[in-house]
This record gives sequence, C-alpha cells and structure tokens, in this order.
Amino acid sequence: MPPIESLRERFAGRLLTDPAETAAHLTDWRGKWTGRAIAVAQPDDTDGVAAIMRWCHAHRVAVVPQGGNTGLSGGATPDGSGNSLVLSLARMRRVRAIDVPNNTITAEAGVSLHGVQTAARDAGRLFPLSLAAEGSCTIGGNLATNAGGVQVLRYGNSRDLCLGLEVVTVDGRVWHGLKGLRKDNTGYDLRDLFIGSEGTLGVITAATLKLFPLPNSKMVAFAAVASAQAAVALLELAQANFADGLTAFELMSDTCIALVEKHVDAARFPLAERAAWYALIELSSTADEAETARLMERMLGLAIERELIVDAAVSTNIGQFRALWALREDISEAQGAEGKTIKHDISLPITLIPDFVEQTSREILERFALARMVVFGHLGDGNLHFNVSPPAGAGPDAAPAFVAQEAALNKFVHDAVSRLGGSISAEHGLGVLRRDEASRYRDPTAQALMQAIKQALDPLGLMNPGKVIVPPAR
Amino acid sequence: MPPIESLRERFAGRLLTDPAETAAHLTDWRGKWTGRAIAVAQPDDTDGVAAIMRWCHAHRVAVVPQGGNTGLSGGATPDGSGNSLVLSLARMRRVRAIDVPNNTITAEAGVSLHGVQTAARDAGRLFPLSLAAEGSCTIGGNLATNAGGVQVLRYGNSRDLCLGLEVVTVDGRVWHGLKGLRKDNTGYDLRDLFIGSEGTLGVITAATLKLFPLPNSKMVAFAAVASAQAAVALLELAQANFADGLTAFELMSDTCIALVEKHVDAARFPLAERAAWYALIELSSTADEAETARLMERMLGLAIERELIVDAAVSTNIGQFRALWALREDISEAQGAEGKTIKHDISLPITLIPDFVEQTSREILERFALARMVVFGHLGDGNLHFNVSPPAGAGPDAAPAFVAQEAALNKFVHDAVSRLGGSISAEHGLGVLRRDEASRYRDPTAQALMQAIKQALDPLGLMNPGKVIVPPAR
Repeated sequence: MPPIESLRERFAGRLLTDPAETAAHLTDWRGKWTGRAIAVAQPDDTDGVAAIMRWCHAHRVAVVPQGGNTGLSGGATPDGSGNSLVLSLARMRRVRAIDVPNNTITAEAGVSLHGVQTAARDAGRLFPLSLAAEGSCTIGGNLATNAGGVQVLRYGNSRDLCLGLEVVTVDGRVWHGLKGLRKDNTGYDLRDLFIGSEGTLGVITAATLKLFPLPNSKMVAFAAVASAQAAVALLELAQANFADGLTAFELMSDTCIALVEKHVDAARFPLAERAAWYALIELSSTADEAETARLMERMLGLAIERELIVDAAVSTNIGQFRALWALREDISEAQGAEGKTIKHDISLPITLIPDFVEQTSREILERFALARMVVFGHLGDGNLHFNVSPPAGAGPDAAPAFVAQEAALNKFVHDAVSRLGGSISAEHGLGVLRRDEASRYRDPTAQALMQAIKQALDPLGLMNPGKVIVPPAR
Repeated sequence: MPPIESLRERFAGRLLTDPAETAAHLTDWRGKWTGRAIAVAQPDDTDGVAAIMRWCHAHRVAVVPQGGNTGLSGGATPDGSGNSLVLSLARMRRVRAIDVPNNTITAEAGVSLHGVQTAARDAGRLFPLSLAAEGSCTIGGNLATNAGGVQVLRYGNSRDLCLGLEVVTVDGRVWHGLKGLRKDNTGYDLRDLFIGSEGTLGVITAATLKLFPLPNSKMVAFAAVASAQAAVALLELAQANFADGLTAFELMSDTCIALVEKHVDAARFPLAERAAWYALIELSSTADEAETARLMERMLGLAIERELIVDAAVSTNIGQFRALWALREDISEAQGAEGKTIKHDISLPITLIPDFVEQTSREILERFALARMVVFGHLGDGNLHFNVSPPAGAGPDAAPAFVAQEAALNKFVHDAVSRLGGSISAEHGLGVLRRDEASRYRDPTAQALMQAIKQALDPLGLMNPGKVIVPPAR
C-alpha cells in the first residue's frame, strides 16, 4: 500500500478516507455498481489534480476520475480491488471566463451543467446542452462521456459544443488547450480524443465551450402520428420547413405515454384520440411568438394534408410548453416505477428506424417471455431508447424470470443494431456496462487502433482501468 | 531500391514512373514545393490502397497521400529524397451512397468537392463545404486538412461535416468506419484523429458526410462599416437577428476591394462612398425571398440606427448575389496579381480582432520596409487572412527586399497571435510550411501527446514523413 499520508499532507481536508465520507463516491447513483478505493481526492484546482496524478503515477496507483456521479454505464465507479484512487472534480467549480462577442465560456470540470447553462443565460447567451441529470451532472463528466440529450438535433453532442480543453495526463503534466477558436488546424485533434474517452486517457480539468444566441420564442407540438414511418416523413417535413429552427424531434409510443399518465399525477393526455406513436416537435426562433406559431401551424397543416399526423396540440404558453415536454421527459421515471427495466441506448441511420422498430419489437415479443416494449427517444438524431419492461400487472414475482433474460435480450437487440450499421451506445458511453459488447462488435482495425492509443497515452494502464476498452495485451 | 516491378504487376497502368506523367504529382499547384518519388500509384479502390500500403510497409517505403493537389502548405508533395511513393486517390471517385431521409452521402476520397456538392443537390440536399478550389480539390484532401471555407460560421469545418470514415492504416489494414450516425459513443474518436492529420497517421479512402436541407432563399449584403470594432458589433447583431440563417460574415479592408477593382474587369464597387472596412453578410432561409429580404432590411436598419454601418447594398437577384460575393472571392487572385504576397492564415477570439488588426498592422508598417496590409477573411469564424504585399507601384525591383523579410514578418505576426491565444494556421493546415513554427508555439504537453500518437500509429515513420509534426526522437 503506498504511503497515503504523504498525499494527505498536501490535501488536508480534501482527501477522504472515512467510509462515511467516501461511500457516496464508491457507488453509482442508481446503486448498480459498487467498488472500493484507497481514498477519494477532491482537489480544488488544476495544480492539485496534477499533484495527485504525479503521486499516483509515482506509486503506480490507478485513478478513477469522477464528476457528478450520474453516469449510466458505471464509468466513474472504482472496481472492487480497493487499489485505485477516486479523483473527484466536484470542487473545481469556477466559471473562469465568459467572452460574449466570441460566444465562449470557460468552466472548470466540476461546474454542473445547470451552472454552465445559468452562467450563459446571465450573459444573454444559450448553452444548449440539456439532459435529465443537468442539476447534478458536471460539464467535465458531460465531455468525458460526450453526453447527448434533447437538443442534439440542432446543437450537436457535447463534443460539438467544445472548442478547447485543459487536461492533466496520467503522469501529471498539464495540456493548456483552452482555446476559444472556431478554426485551428495546427496538429492532431487531441481535444476530440479526450472527449468521450471516459477518463481512460487523461483527466479533463476545464473546457472552453460554445455559446449561442438565445432564441426569442419557442414552441412545441405534440402530434399523433400514423406510424413510425410517418414520423420519419414528418421529421423530413419539419427539417425542410424549419431548418435549424427545429431544436428537438422526439418519438414515443403510446405505451410510454400511458406509463407517464399512470405514474405522474400532473400528466394530462393532450389530444382527443390515442395513436400508436407520438412526435414531440420543438421550434425555436429569433422571430416573435406570432411568427413562430404561424410557422408551426403551417408545417402541421402540411403534415395533416399529407396524412402524416392525425391530430396535434401546440403550446401557447410556457406552462403548456413544459407540460408537453414533461410527457416525454417523465418516461424514464415512469418506466422505472413499473419495476425492472432492460435498456438499450441505440442509434441507427434514421431511414432504417421504422422497419427496425417494427420487426425487432415483434421478434422480441415472440422470443422473450414477459416482454413489453417501451420505445422512445431522439428520432431526429436516430437515437432510440429501445427499452423493455415486464407487462403491466406482472407483479414482483415475475421480476427474476424477466431479469434472467437480460444478457440474451441485449445480444438480440445489439446484433440487430450492428447488422444495420448502428451503435449500441449512442449517448450513454461504455463504462463497464457496454465495454465487452462494444469490443465484440467493433471493427478489428478500430480495436487495434484504440488499443495502440491507450497504450501510447497510458502505458501503465493507470487511467480508469477496466473502462471503455479491453486493455491491450501486454 | 525496392522491387517496384512487383507492384507494377498488380497495378498495370495505375503506377506512374514516366517523368512526363509523374511531374504534376511532384509539385504543388503553385509551384512552391517540388520533390521526387519512386512512383505515383493511382489505385481505384480501397483494396488497391491496402495492397499498396502493405507493399510499402514491407519494403519500408514512405507514402505521400495526395488528393487534388490544391493544398497551400506543401502537405501533399514528396520530399527531395526520391525514396517515397506518392499515393494519388484521384481514381477513387465513386459516390457510394446517398441516404436522403438520413441526410448522408458516402463518397470516396477522390470525389471532387464540387462532385459531392452536385450529388447532394441532385438529391435535393445541401453539402455546405465551399472553398475556392472546390472544382479540383477532393473530399479526401478536404478531410485530411480539415478544410474551412466560406460557410464555416453556420455549418462548421470539414470535421463537423463528417460522420464516418474508411481509413487504410500504414500496414495496409482497413478500418471500416463509414457509419452514418449522429450519435455513437462506443470508444475513442478515431474519426477526428484522422481528420486534419494530413495523411501522417493513415489514408482516408472514403467518408460518410452530413447533408442539410437546401435553403429556399439566399441574400447577401455588402456593408460599409465604420471600423473593425463596428464589424464585430455588426456580427453580434446579425447573429442575434438571423441565428443560423447567418451563413457567412466576411470582412475586408478597402485596400482589398481596390485591388479587386484594379485587377478584375467585371468588378464594380456597389456603394456611393468608400469606407475603411466592408462586411459581406449572407442570410439563408427556409422562408421565401420577400421574407428573407424583410429580415435583412430590418437588421441593416438597426445597424444604421446604431451607427455600425454607413451604407449597404443588398442583392435582389442571383447576378447581384454573385457579383457581391466576387468582390470577396477575387481578393486572393487580385493580391497575387500585385506580385509577391506574404500570407498569414490566423484565427483569434473574435473579441480581440479589432485591436489586433489595428495594432499589429501599425507595428508592421513601422518595422518592415515595403509593407502594405491586405487584410480580409472570415470574421464570423475569427479567421483572418492577414496578408502583406509590397506597396502599389513598388515594381519588380522591390521584390527581393520585400521577400527577404518573410521569416521575420511571419515570426512577428505569429508571436502576436500566439500571445493572444490564437492559431497560426486556422484553415490551411501545417504541411511543411508551418510545421516547425507550430511546434515552437505548441504547448509542450500537446507536443508530447501528438508525438506519442504518431509513434503509436506509425512506428516506422512511413506516413507522409516530415509533415505536420517534428518526428518523435527515436
């Protein structure tokens, strides 16, 4: 065991070893993974991170970087060996700079996503990344996992919102790469290599991010669509009519909405009749509300004319806007309230989605016991949460038999996705959850290239070991 | 010398060794760099590229990938040793697929940029990358150099337009990464590592690219601005009013426009009075022409009210649209017609540009003989072509004294850019032209990381040797 006291001297009060204090850092928020660690370090600046990395490197101690600990793939939880150190970035929470005319903000890794959004808004700008955990997830974690969310269609993933990074390497050097430039072709793209690498190549300590003008008006429509195929045609129509005004296009099945109505008191179904599928369409504009409403109405009129939708409700005030969005945002929670969930975070070329959903859902219902499809997601990005729950009223007794099918069900879904050129982890990352599956589906040349990069940047295998990729053979 | 005949057998007619045939591949289009090669190979498919790479790897022959040979930094020209092979992708020019609802196109590396644009338009979609060499540059070269151009403000650099790649490694393996997905978090971002690496890590053989809806209407305004500072405020006003409808925002000095008027017969100055600076503002919209005109007029009205502009001309038909754009696009050619040019392709945080331009221009005129500033570029991206010419009427006799200052002038400009956190190669890449300068200004940790990556992916140093980065010490 390395002399942890030598680290404690420098980090008095910021090095946790008391189990009562470390416990929250050793388990993910859903309690799916639990590990052990020699300590949890909470440095409050980049120099502190570098000092910890040098200490760990000198003593061959593995490091598990951790942000808000809100991940869904176990990427921020240490393994059970007790030999690694959890490096929490939670105390690095300064907004270092905002440059309004340049449309950039520089924030430390531990600033919450909500904190970045708020700082931007206070400066009269939009930081568009938005996802369910935004109150507690950190921007460092968002970048480490290349988080997606509900505005990707218009503004891109976390990757697309980042201009520069500050990163500490495994041996405690600092890359000062916080440039706020839209164009910079002066060497290899280190930024995008660290983004999405889930702490396995280095530690992101700060980022310079893009800001956007605040829209003047926003409106959402909740539309009953004739079929998933009609939803794809509706997406195309909305893109042609709104271009970048189209800031979200979500799809959800009637099963999803029924779950929300069952489990969320405030939920109200907004249409006169039910359909198999619904689309949620958000339009943002620099124009005023009347013009935005006119644009939305015209598009919906065309959609009815073309028999793509059968009915639609539109928001006319902020309360309605939020209520319609809540029907989409509350699905995960409502599904959770129904008991055990088997989740798939997949993406596909959008063209292939209707057939995939129809055929794969049917085959799952035929082959697997106790399966109920709960399908929703970001159709505009080709990203579906293709989830499975036990049937209503199955009761807790059915849970073990349902859960026992998880590995086989994952393989069935992911085989189908892989055959169609899709991704088995669209926005949640690999962590430990999807590491081995991703390796199995990955192109062998890509696998060898990724292992070579891991070996080059972390030759001792100390950065978040066991996450993302199977370690290169040594 | 390796047995070139063994390669010729497989590539009859596609392996050039006759100097009359190879000459065009051994010199860049401006004739600034000339090298030698054992042969120029022109495979017509990915298997052919892989076979060549395996042959070169087995015989330790260096490879210089080449697209349309239109680069500005010498990145596609072999060195003088005569030991390397030029790998031309020019015969790989199939558009492999277009998926309209998914908004993607898959094209081989040798398809010209104009070819990709045309294929997209024929499918009712926009491929927005646009730059002067688009008739002859190739999409593979655009990606290898992460080319920019005139629509970056709205659509991003080449990097931002690419979803998937097919790449052949230095030892002839193929990475089949042509995914048309907006979201895919299943490992390290190999795509962005190859993009912008100028052929020093592998050979891009095909790409899957993003398409966009075609705008319904486009309009351009040519405005006389009170100062560079006013141009930045005008940019902010245009962004707030147009959001993503703002597809270009270019800045140019009166000197630039005067050069165009002097050297381009068709050029007509469109305003009643001259100013020190002009902005070219392009608005694209899904709305009709009347609505687009109304939006533009309103923004220009606000700009006049706030005294940001003193006068403006707007295009009311396609002929005027092209004529106003030509005033900007013909600057490079007009400057070339004035004699020797010393060029700087820099980017800066936009906020810092007015002071940089004012102060650095003044200092150059004070410190360097025979200098005339020719400043123009993509203000919306923070990217200026901060060029210097000899004064009008200096005559050919002055050229040697002017040119003799090039290295000192480069250093003076690039030192100033570097102090302000800018980039010394915003969109032209490093090649051999800026390799050593970029190394000098680069963060030492970034330098070490880049060298580690180069070493990991090309341990024998066979991929486009001497380009982009100083080779790692062996």
